[in-house]
Amino acid sequence: MPKVRVHNFSITLDGFAAGPNQRLDAPFGDLPEAELHHWMFQTRFWHEMQGESGGDEGLDQQFASRWTDNIGATIMGRNMFGPVRGPWGDEEWKGWWGPNPPYHHSVFVLTHYARPSITMEGGTEFHFVDGGPEAALQMALTAAGGKDVLIGGGAATIRQYLRAGLIDEMEIAIAPMLNGAGERLFDDVGDLRGYECAELVSSPAVVHARIVRRTT
Amino acid sequence: MPKVRVHNFSITLDGFAAGPNQRLDAPFGDLPEAELHHWMFQTRFWHEMQGESGGDEGLDQQFASRWTDNIGATIMGRNMFGPVRGPWGDEEWKGWWGPNPPYHHSVFVLTHYARPSITMEGGTEFHFVDGGPEAALQMALTAAGGKDVLIGGGAATIRQYLRAGLIDEMEIAIAPMLNGAGERLFDDVGDLRGYECAELVSSPAVVHARIVRRTT
Repeated sequence: MPKVRVHNFSITLDGFAAGPNQRLDAPFGDLPEAELHHWMFQTRFWHEMQGESGGDEGLDQQFASRWTDNIGATIMGRNMFGPVRGPWGDEEWKGWWGPNPPYHHSVFVLTHYARPSITMEGGTEFHFVDGGPEAALQMALTAAGGKDVLIGGGAATIRQYLRAGLIDEMEIAIAPMLNGAGERLFDDVGDLRGYECAELVSSPAVVHARIVRRTT
Repeated sequence: MPKVRVHNFSITLDGFAAGPNQRLDAPFGDLPEAELHHWMFQTRFWHEMQGESGGDEGLDQQFASRWTDNIGATIMGRNMFGPVRGPWGDEEWKGWWGPNPPYHHSVFVLTHYARPSITMEGGTEFHFVDGGPEAALQMALTAAGGKDVLIGGGAATIRQYLRAGLIDEMEIAIAPMLNGAGERLFDDVGDLRGYECAELVSSPAVVHARIVRRTT
C-alpha cells in the first residue's frame, strides 16, 4: 500500500515551524530560517538541489535524501507554493523554484481558487485543487501510480492531514534553537497516541525523529 | 554568580510535560508517565534515589546526575509537593518522598497558603512561600549559600520563572513519544531568543537539550 509521508520538516526545540508575523518577504516570519534549516544546508542533498556539488554525507544526508525516495506525488498548501493570496490574478506566479522545480512529478496545491494546471520543466506539474485535502490526496495517490505521496507542508497543511488521520510516516527535524512564539506543527492535531516514535537520533546539528503508525 | 537551573525535565516530542485531566491518582493526567520517564528509570541515578544498586552508566546517567551537582536549594510548585489543594488542613502531608526526601537541602514550595516549615530526615527542610516566585528565589539563593538553585517543577512553575527571565540553564529531555494534548512546558513563556541550545545529543532512549543564556 502506498504511504502518505512527511520528510525534512523542521521545528524548534519549543515546537515552532515558523515565527509570528509570516509575510511576503519573510515566509517564516520572525524566526531565523537559516538557523532552523542549518542542518539541511550542509547536506549533499541540498547542494544537489541547488545544482552544486559537495555537501556532507552522514546522518543528516541520510534523512534529507529520503524526501525523494519512492515519492510519486506531492501535496502542499497554497502558502508553500507562493506568496499570492486570494484570486490568482495574472497567473504569472509559478512557484518559488524556478523553471525546473525539484519535484519532477505531479504537485497538488491546496487552494480555494481554481486555476489551470502548469507544466514545468523536468516533469513537475502543478495542479490546483479546490476540493479539500481528501480530494487532493485521492488525486495524488492516482498520480503517484503506486508510489508514496509526500505532504510537503507547510505546518497548517500537515496539521490538516494529521487531524484527519491520513499521515502514515513523518520525519521531523528538531533544531537546537528556541523561538518563544509562532506557528506550531503539533497543535490541535487530535489524539496522536496511534503513532509511535520509531527512531530518535541526533547529529551534531539536529535531532531526527521518525514517527510511524503503531502496528500493535 | 549562583545560577538558577532546571534539570531532568521531560517532555514529549510534541511538547507536553503532562497530559490532560491531571488528578490525584494520576499526577501526569492522561499521559503514560512510565514512557515519559523511561530513560531516567534506567539510570544509576534513579536506582540510587530508590536506595537500590545498579542502573546504567552512560549519557543518560551523566545528564540525570547533574540534578544534584552544586545545587544548594530547590524551588517547586505546590502540585509537585503534593495533591492537597486549598488550605493545608491537618498538615499531615509531608511530600511524596517519605521521611528522607532526596533533596538534603532547603526546598521552597510556592503556595497561596502559609504553613510552618517542616524538617525532614537527611537535611531536607520544606518551607512554604506565599510571597510569589521572586521572593521564593531570594530565599532559595540565601539558603543555597553560594551554590545554585534548582527549579524542580512542575511545568507551570518553570514557565513562571522563564517568563520572568530568571532561569539561567535548563536541561530538557525529549522523550520519543507523542501525546497530542496536555500541558506544555514552552507555552506563553515570552521571548526565548535570549537563550541558545548549547548541547543537543541523544541516547537510544531520549534526546537531551541543554539550554543556556546567550552570552553574545
